[in-house]
Amino acid sequence: MTIQTPATELLKIKLPLIQGGMIWCSGWRLASAVSNAGGLGTLGSGSMYPEVLQAHLTKLQAATDQPFAVNLPLLYPSMEEHIQSCIDFKVPVVITSAGSPRIHTERLKNAGICVLHVVSSASFALKSQAAGVDAVIAEGFEAGGHNGREETTTMVLIPAVRDAVQIPVIAAGGIADGRAMAAALALGADAVQIGSRFAASQESSAHPAFKEAILRAGEGATQLTLKELAPVRLLKNPFYQEIQSAYLQGASKEELEALLGRGRAKKGMFEGDMQEGELEIGQVAQSIHDLPSAAELTKNIYSDCVDTLRDLARFTR
Amino acid sequence: MTIQTPATELLKIKLPLIQGGMIWCSGWRLASAVSNAGGLGTLGSGSMYPEVLQAHLTKLQAATDQPFAVNLPLLYPSMEEHIQSCIDFKVPVVITSAGSPRIHTERLKNAGICVLHVVSSASFALKSQAAGVDAVIAEGFEAGGHNGREETTTMVLIPAVRDAVQIPVIAAGGIADGRAMAAALALGADAVQIGSRFAASQESSAHPAFKEAILRAGEGATQLTLKELAPVRLLKNPFYQEIQSAYLQGASKEELEALLGRGRAKKGMFEGDMQEGELEIGQVAQSIHDLPSAAELTKNIYSDCVDTLRDLARFTR
Repeated sequence: MTIQTPATELLKIKLPLIQGGMIWCSGWRLASAVSNAGGLGTLGSGSMYPEVLQAHLTKLQAATDQPFAVNLPLLYPSMEEHIQSCIDFKVPVVITSAGSPRIHTERLKNAGICVLHVVSSASFALKSQAAGVDAVIAEGFEAGGHNGREETTTMVLIPAVRDAVQIPVIAAGGIADGRAMAAALALGADAVQIGSRFAASQESSAHPAFKEAILRAGEGATQLTLKELAPVRLLKNPFYQEIQSAYLQGASKEELEALLGRGRAKKGMFEGDMQEGELEIGQVAQSIHDLPSAAELTKNIYSDCVDTLRDLARFTR
Repeated sequence: MTIQTPATELLKIKLPLIQGGMIWCSGWRLASAVSNAGGLGTLGSGSMYPEVLQAHLTKLQAATDQPFAVNLPLLYPSMEEHIQSCIDFKVPVVITSAGSPRIHTERLKNAGICVLHVVSSASFALKSQAAGVDAVIAEGFEAGGHNGREETTTMVLIPAVRDAVQIPVIAAGGIADGRAMAAALALGADAVQIGSRFAASQESSAHPAFKEAILRAGEGATQLTLKELAPVRLLKNPFYQEIQSAYLQGASKEELEALLGRGRAKKGMFEGDMQEGELEIGQVAQSIHDLPSAAELTKNIYSDCVDTLRDLARFTR
């Protein structure tokens, strides 16, 4: 018995579960572990130079014969080269985010690639569908990393996107266990995308100090900030506090950009500087207390989802 | 076939659905309609003088023989008199919010009243349980009106509260249809509390202009603001813009308080001043497009929830 949906059919995966592509956390080890466990593993290309992505693609293809994805956060550099790499390596699925779906979808689809776009509103979901994407990933306010200005939460966003489009809808934001996966299916999603939970897994390439910080995160430990620049949910560390004081002193967009720089995310998530680094993680970090393997996580979340649905089925008899 | 849970047992109601007590929206007409339809109707006492609450209680008791509740938002005046009225009128259920559960719970319980407390975090849920409340209502960031500083969304909050306490958990925030009700049950809730959807019902005492504004609200139409004072989710009308410009100009807590005043909510929600009034409503307003009767709403949300659970049950066979 497996949960088959339009999303598992589209992506040719066994379980309706996508591991979110996360900068500095999701290389070939994590992606292959998830794909081999029946989900869709994803390389987060935002933090990679072109030759680094190519090296990860080579290793990933050697480590799995199952479908996988590459996430292209369009606000990062090297996207043109990354797209060519995806075409050259015959990547089965590309997930575009943080940009317009109109720019690259046609080229990717012409190369036989399945294209998913990340949206934070029903109106963007409609635009993405019109741009020809195969499915949308609707990501709520609670999600880590880059996010929408409308602040719409997963609970409100998924039914709205479900009602707006005809293509498969994948729910993201706040999902880290089988209960939330079942809830997403109830809201109308055809699959889930899970990021933060996999950032805190054995195969995640996050620095051990960042993984420890995720385990320690409590309620209210993250905040959506930099709304004028590009809204992003961060762990409230000293670097975050620096951003907040800059805000309170009325910093300009340029000053905020200078403060942010580009090296901050690497410094925090990959090099483990918990003071001066930028730490992107979702609200659901508050519920993460261990560091299992990605295969265990995939299997447990899925089987807990099935158990939850079985438990709820008692109300229908 | 009905959905029986520890919450329906505790509250002696047929359907695990509580209509949220909302200032200026939920008088005896709305509460009796929901209670008569099998849910738990609630009077919102925050906007009432003591004699007004007593008049509503008299009418409510004449209009229904089913259980109902009174919501006591403890940051409003007249709470001492309201508690005495609840005791005198033998109100079956009291829902306290926006204050400490330690102050009034014992007195209310000694009078034979079932006490629920609204929380926005698992740590407050634990404190509420320790204070002796019978159940907690866990309300996510997306909810209208007063809210928590942690900004934890319903998707993340409900499993966290479920894991923290042994008493029944009622989910609130972002719930306006049967899919979201089913999702809340999947997350571990024993019932749901629904506010905004009932604000836009026939029996709601909201001004027709406010109801129309709810129907017109699109994505990103609300915002959690006044975080330094008492965080509250408002519709972004000219009054909200006034608050935001005060913020940008570095207004003090006192200046914000003066700007807010007390009459603003009445002006907006009850008197229909869409320019200068305060309009409390949840994110889910974006999905509300009609003004049915409260009985229809109660029945349809419940039966859509059952349909959703039936539909999900196919994954368990």
